[in-house]
Amino acid sequence: MRAVTVREGEILVEQHPDPEPGSGEALVRVRAAGLNGADMMQRRGLYPAPEGSPQRIPGLELAGEVVALGPHARRFAVGDRVMAIVGGGGQAELAVVHERQLMPAPAALDWPAAGGAPEVFTTAHDALFTQAALRPGERLLVHGGAGGVGTAAIQLARAAGARVSATVRDERLRGEVGALGARAIAPEGFAARGPFDVILELVGAPNLAHNLDALAVGGRITVIGVGAGAKAELNLLALMGKRARVHGSTLRTRPLEEKALAARALEREVLPLLEDSTLRVPLAATFPLERAAEAYERFAAGGKLGKIVLEI
Amino acid sequence: MRAVTVREGEILVEQHPDPEPGSGEALVRVRAAGLNGADMMQRRGLYPAPEGSPQRIPGLELAGEVVALGPHARRFAVGDRVMAIVGGGGQAELAVVHERQLMPAPAALDWPAAGGAPEVFTTAHDALFTQAALRPGERLLVHGGAGGVGTAAIQLARAAGARVSATVRDERLRGEVGALGARAIAPEGFAARGPFDVILELVGAPNLAHNLDALAVGGRITVIGVGAGAKAELNLLALMGKRARVHGSTLRTRPLEEKALAARALEREVLPLLEDSTLRVPLAATFPLERAAEAYERFAAGGKLGKIVLEI
Repeated sequence: MRAVTVREGEILVEQHPDPEPGSGEALVRVRAAGLNGADMMQRRGLYPAPEGSPQRIPGLELAGEVVALGPHARRFAVGDRVMAIVGGGGQAELAVVHERQLMPAPAALDWPAAGGAPEVFTTAHDALFTQAALRPGERLLVHGGAGGVGTAAIQLARAAGARVSATVRDERLRGEVGALGARAIAPEGFAARGPFDVILELVGAPNLAHNLDALAVGGRITVIGVGAGAKAELNLLALMGKRARVHGSTLRTRPLEEKALAARALEREVLPLLEDSTLRVPLAATFPLERAAEAYERFAAGGKLGKIVLEI
Repeated sequence: MRAVTVREGEILVEQHPDPEPGSGEALVRVRAAGLNGADMMQRRGLYPAPEGSPQRIPGLELAGEVVALGPHARRFAVGDRVMAIVGGGGQAELAVVHERQLMPAPAALDWPAAGGAPEVFTTAHDALFTQAALRPGERLLVHGGAGGVGTAAIQLARAAGARVSATVRDERLRGEVGALGARAIAPEGFAARGPFDVILELVGAPNLAHNLDALAVGGRITVIGVGAGAKAELNLLALMGKRARVHGSTLRTRPLEEKALAARALEREVLPLLEDSTLRVPLAATFPLERAAEAYERFAAGGKLGKIVLEI
């Protein structure tokens, strides 16, 4: 099979042996695979794939058709449209996925939308609801509202009855973010627009002090991205005074059972809203597999709303 | 009535008007009132009493007898032995307490023990179980194991089946802390003794970086004291990698309903263990009201195991 391959920081498309499904696993003919921030970090050698995942083939999510089943795999049949988060190896013609990580791909989504949905909706759902326990009526601030996770978080929070603000650096994208249901604001001086009950931090350290200023009593900050820096000063006395929490979270390194739980939560609470088009998957651009390097450049350039997806 | 009075950093005993119980409140003849770190901060002007609490009379906890009831107060009768956390004003001959904040004082506790129990056991119980969700079998580290909250936390965690380590600066106190059920260790190099699932931070900022190093995946750091400093660098990428949380918490500023919930949790889960002597209230020293200034000096000097309590 052909697959995107990381070699000394370069993005290539190379031939690899076809993977074979083991016990409880399905072989998926990948039709679309989204790009994510973690792919950019992996390319720079900063975020190696977990043990047991392909080390050189990036890709944390995929959508496609089941083409073969390993022993004891029963949840899906050959020919089923599926999608999943994987530890790596999603940007390839074929991928092996444990059936507990697979979800049905909603009929309402075409392949690029299905290939760009799992990572951002699982990440946003887990961060907002499982970690931060966002409640109806609460005030949410999303930092980085125009990105993949940002657009997913805004829509999920709105669908759950929260009031949503989102920082968007690129002024030209604020209209589109507003159309998703958020009050789109400039990153500068965001703290004055608070207080917020939950802050979803996709940008990193430079925001932390102002996040704490902007937080309501009992508020939660959930950090799932640190592209702009990882180390920040935290005022513990302010944290105490607000009875606040700072969570850090990442999906990639979780064990199978926790990833499977996140997938089940998505099936219950998110797939019905994708199926009935309450939620949509904003796509910034799609690229064929052969032009993967170009897709990576496009992702790194920023200034986009929604996902960059490889069609395979 | 006479009461401890803070005047420009000095601890005096002065005459004040007797307080009167309002609707739902009880007037308590205070028999004992513990000292806490917050009293030391209030004395230095750093931690003012919340609105509605006496501003000049310190004291966050008390035990005594109900001597009068305001309208609609029904939970207790005149003559009942009670104890409570209060927003301030505990170190006085009389105090008014809302009946939802009052708890029965266990018969097994004499007055000094009852006067020194509410704040530390409520704080430790809330931090360990309500905030950090400590589970049986988990590994807990208590920073500042010889203090009032530390000794309460060690005992509560042991009673709940956790495995407990505690840092104790004063080498001479490590034997006593060990007798409470903890592995008592030096603060230096504590991170090498991990990993820990929960870390109860009673010391402050200087520990934060090592706490994160010592934390297990899925771990929780609960900060309830920052005597050694409030501002610390937090590595958000490490927080994400460990899928960890940092909580800050304080009881004092909570609204009545939240304080009442904490009191009910204590009645259910802690008072039975005080009553049957599974838990004890270590007392370092007691002082009569007139010698309050001396009690404050003794508290500030440190090097003690357990509570300093005023007998009134």
